[in-house]
Amino acid sequence: MIKVAIVGYGNIGQYALQAIEAAPDMECVGIVRRNGAENKPAELKDYPVVKNISELSGVQVAVLATPTRSVEEYAKQCLALGINTVDSFDIHQKIVDLRRTLDAEAKKHGAVSVIAAGWDPGSDSIVRTLMESLAPKGISYTNFGPGRSMGHSVAVRAIEGVRDALSMTIPVGTGIHRRMVYVELEDGADFAKVEAAIKSDPYFVNDETHVQQVACVADLNDVGHGVNLVRKGVSGTTHNQLFEFNMKINNPALTAQVLINVARASLLQQPGAYTMIELPVIDMLPGNREDIIAHLV
Amino acid sequence: MIKVAIVGYGNIGQYALQAIEAAPDMECVGIVRRNGAENKPAELKDYPVVKNISELSGVQVAVLATPTRSVEEYAKQCLALGINTVDSFDIHQKIVDLRRTLDAEAKKHGAVSVIAAGWDPGSDSIVRTLMESLAPKGISYTNFGPGRSMGHSVAVRAIEGVRDALSMTIPVGTGIHRRMVYVELEDGADFAKVEAAIKSDPYFVNDETHVQQVACVADLNDVGHGVNLVRKGVSGTTHNQLFEFNMKINNPALTAQVLINVARASLLQQPGAYTMIELPVIDMLPGNREDIIAHLV
Repeated sequence: MIKVAIVGYGNIGQYALQAIEAAPDMECVGIVRRNGAENKPAELKDYPVVKNISELSGVQVAVLATPTRSVEEYAKQCLALGINTVDSFDIHQKIVDLRRTLDAEAKKHGAVSVIAAGWDPGSDSIVRTLMESLAPKGISYTNFGPGRSMGHSVAVRAIEGVRDALSMTIPVGTGIHRRMVYVELEDGADFAKVEAAIKSDPYFVNDETHVQQVACVADLNDVGHGVNLVRKGVSGTTHNQLFEFNMKINNPALTAQVLINVARASLLQQPGAYTMIELPVIDMLPGNREDIIAHLV
Repeated sequence: MIKVAIVGYGNIGQYALQAIEAAPDMECVGIVRRNGAENKPAELKDYPVVKNISELSGVQVAVLATPTRSVEEYAKQCLALGINTVDSFDIHQKIVDLRRTLDAEAKKHGAVSVIAAGWDPGSDSIVRTLMESLAPKGISYTNFGPGRSMGHSVAVRAIEGVRDALSMTIPVGTGIHRRMVYVELEDGADFAKVEAAIKSDPYFVNDETHVQQVACVADLNDVGHGVNLVRKGVSGTTHNQLFEFNMKINNPALTAQVLINVARASLLQQPGAYTMIELPVIDMLPGNREDIIAHLV
């Protein structure tokens, strides 16, 4: 059994525990939480819950279910202990830098770090890379949603007069997205002013944006999300090759499943840091390799 | 530049040459044909055309564009010379055996063999494996077509009274296919008898099959094909996760592009035999790895 620890026990951490419990080849050897065992949730009663990864023994892989901005710090701490790490770091423009930093750290300690392993970046990256290989010339579009955008929602919550907000990403094709923003206002706030502030915010200024006032944003909560990846291009010298990948998914459940898959795969790689497109997909499945090949190739 | 030879110059071989010429990092160093340079086609005028791979020098990878049943023989011949091989062997049930045989041969000579590398088996296998990893419990369906089935067409051509035949595979969902069979009859043949023979043939007996008589099967020729891969399953303990992959493609052009991609990838693997699900997808693209990661992850 692969011994896995979960670092961070928010939304993704909870789904990660479910995915580990559902995996035939893994066991959870502990959870790292800021508050340690204080107010330990019922489902953790059989697990060691600690404040620092160093308090757990025998950990082979740490699933970093922390905010993206804390990934590097926690990854370095685990790698220094010779523990593999996996994360779903999602700032696309900073992935190359994080990979360089953690690659050096991982190699120094003979460990493996798999970064940016969620669904986008993550499993979508594998599909985008595969599609680009199948038609090396052409155009790809990634169409997200319908689903929540955390970054956009946070940006709206920062606007004066907004008590709570939800920004939904709606795909309108060719990588263009409509923003549907639902706001719950502070008492006495002026909706027209809030709406104008949202529409002029850098997060929204380039997109078609609709703002609606609602009584309670929490009532709109739904973690469903989706993607539509398309590529039209040229294989060799043959044009009009058409490819499409769609999914409609529970967002944190899929992210957690991907993290568990790459935790498994991390044990099969040489020391260093990897993105998902650098891992053979077979390494993400449990079981005998010839059986997998017979079943899926 | 990666030095590639093409073994077999039929349909796939011709598209493989186009794909090599379109690749920024490859050159074709020769073609192996049964007739050698005899009746050399115009597009081969600048290339050495020989009867045996041993007559070419500096070959790093041989693209085996031969019939599936000849793949093993040609692969062994190339591997013995230390030349990597790639093929689109497509008998699903025999892939594990071929991998074992060529794995031993490849390791003996310090070479790499990538097998079953077309679109199915091949790129579809990567998508199937990825989908299974994203929702480890659930059901996948591979729906082929509309497009020609070579095996079914050949089976019809063997029936008495048939001059030429085309069997189209039509997807009706959940992995079930309708067979649309177009037959050109010999003079004096009885259509009703031919139709009955087709419908009772093992290739057709389990599928909904429609037979139509046409004046000229060659006029129906179109190498377009397609696939619809779907999976509905469970990530962790979360049900109803939905995934779908679609493509509409020129069949030999895509097969040839995949062969060229894995030829490139073969140079990055340790000696042995591999199916496509065992290769990182990044290895199939030319160019700098950090640039690819920045662009596609």
